[in-house]
Amino acid sequence: MSNVVNRVFRLRQRPTDRVTEADLELTEEQVPELADGQALVRTLYLSLDASSRLWMSDRKTYIEPVPIDGVMRGLGVGQVVGSRRGDMKAGDLVTGFPGWQDYSVADDTDNEFPFTVLPDPLPAPLPSMLGALGMTGISAYLGLELIGKPQDGETMVVTAAAGAVGNVAGQVGKARGARVVGIAGADDKCAMLVDELGFDAAVNYKADDWARQIDEATPDGIDVQFENVGGPVLNHCISRINRDGRVVLSGIMSQYGGAGAPELDLFPLIVARGLMRAFIVFDHQDRYAEAVDHLGGLVSSGRLKTRETVVEGLQNTLSALNDLYDGRNTGKLVVHVADPEPN
Amino acid sequence: MSNVVNRVFRLRQRPTDRVTEADLELTEEQVPELADGQALVRTLYLSLDASSRLWMSDRKTYIEPVPIDGVMRGLGVGQVVGSRRGDMKAGDLVTGFPGWQDYSVADDTDNEFPFTVLPDPLPAPLPSMLGALGMTGISAYLGLELIGKPQDGETMVVTAAAGAVGNVAGQVGKARGARVVGIAGADDKCAMLVDELGFDAAVNYKADDWARQIDEATPDGIDVQFENVGGPVLNHCISRINRDGRVVLSGIMSQYGGAGAPELDLFPLIVARGLMRAFIVFDHQDRYAEAVDHLGGLVSSGRLKTRETVVEGLQNTLSALNDLYDGRNTGKLVVHVADPEPN
Repeated sequence: MSNVVNRVFRLRQRPTDRVTEADLELTEEQVPELADGQALVRTLYLSLDASSRLWMSDRKTYIEPVPIDGVMRGLGVGQVVGSRRGDMKAGDLVTGFPGWQDYSVADDTDNEFPFTVLPDPLPAPLPSMLGALGMTGISAYLGLELIGKPQDGETMVVTAAAGAVGNVAGQVGKARGARVVGIAGADDKCAMLVDELGFDAAVNYKADDWARQIDEATPDGIDVQFENVGGPVLNHCISRINRDGRVVLSGIMSQYGGAGAPELDLFPLIVARGLMRAFIVFDHQDRYAEAVDHLGGLVSSGRLKTRETVVEGLQNTLSALNDLYDGRNTGKLVVHVADPEPN
Repeated sequence: MSNVVNRVFRLRQRPTDRVTEADLELTEEQVPELADGQALVRTLYLSLDASSRLWMSDRKTYIEPVPIDGVMRGLGVGQVVGSRRGDMKAGDLVTGFPGWQDYSVADDTDNEFPFTVLPDPLPAPLPSMLGALGMTGISAYLGLELIGKPQDGETMVVTAAAGAVGNVAGQVGKARGARVVGIAGADDKCAMLVDELGFDAAVNYKADDWARQIDEATPDGIDVQFENVGGPVLNHCISRINRDGRVVLSGIMSQYGGAGAPELDLFPLIVARGLMRAFIVFDHQDRYAEAVDHLGGLVSSGRLKTRETVVEGLQNTLSALNDLYDGRNTGKLVVHVADPEPN
């Protein structure tokens, strides 16, 4: 492979606002040589996530920041194109953290971000293996299993509801019998949530009267808040929290760029004897299989519709991340890097 | 009793800032006549609580606001001075919600705020039965039992630490083996916490460098935040929360007067997989006996020191409540209304 170019995004400096080409440089490098216990993975699809932006910052988080000059971290699916490890062979489809590059090394001593071989046949197309059946879908499922626990007839609000985690959380909540209200940033997204994904209502938070619309969509208050954004919408929803309500702190995307802390009134949470709890999906690897099994079942029965936005070409990964923060995607945002070779 | 005057504080309007005599009027009324199933209770001590202020507002809370022209609600201890109910006899010492008045009626059909007869002999002096062994002590104990769960060697921060709930929470935390740091609003209170109550450190939040002092007092981060105040100190402490940290939302006294919501950065809570949970002590009546038993044991063994500030005279109850919000008390703030008659 020594004559093949590996395109690599390296972090040159930490972004202060939007991510620029000065922050992330696209370089051309040699494809790594393999040692024993390693496989070479060709990236097929990269996952773009709200946390991608976070990993570029030097803020203390649940994993180390990407080091300066390091390869940008990213989830993805790939195909083994060369192997010196016994548990992976050329042609295998794998998922893990290839990073933002064409080729990565799957080392069998990597316990932190190991690649795993995907099932054959796949339960869903490759982009869905990064979305509804990938880490974002698993996050949605586990956030509800571990914290939100929506019950039949309860009201659940999901923010960033048209996003990768949110759309699955809403559909899983519906499958559990909850009344589900989605919050999104565009009228067409709101229409999609209701008309295509079966949400009971959706509110465009960019509307002038978004707060009144949330009130009208949650006449019986809010039992579960599945929160991906933070800020004024969260504050308003907490003001409507019911007795023994639960706030799933899945993320606060509004602050990942380094914005200051918003105002938050905890008083209604006290009145409600409420719970607010965060979780990190990577802590719960022991439940991934259960999650994928459950989500796969919902997909098979038509109760979970998969939604992806596919951007073409590794070179467009950087602008796609900014699109994610601008809310241009619907469902899971992935970058198509290459097609698998037939086995 | 018809020639005896009952002094009664009635709520004439809802206070907007400090409570004034225009809000709470001290009137003179007749002592009520008893019907079957009722006992007449003479108030001996009244409990002043952060929540007293809250009950005067019309904000949605965990119990109904005091109605306009209603008797101001308040916890207290009293003595039965006349009885037409079989389970209470003249001379009995009781605790419940006498309200801010000399005489109240204990009706055996009142299930919401029933009076109960205190043990004979008392395990502690009457003011302590409203403090360390009363609702505030029980709140401290249950907040740690249900949510905080400080473990041996963990770091716990308590706000309003010289107050009625805080000082007990800190001492119970110490008894559980935690390193305990108290936050209070005066140097002499901080000295008292460390020198008399055995806290490991205390920080005066009015000092210019309070944030740096908290950092120095919690070199290993914060595992449990026992929160009574809310606002900038809470925000700073959450920035220091450790993995799997717990925030006990006992109260947010800073907002009970109607102040706006402060800024709160939830990001560190996500990183920590943290938990923030509120509770209302009145929900847990089934555990009061266990709590008093545990707290009484700590008092007996010298590990829980009781602290009260006693204000003399029912007529001074209103100004005493403002004192509470000004932080003039140390430990439980009670008003001495009358002495018990010997049996």
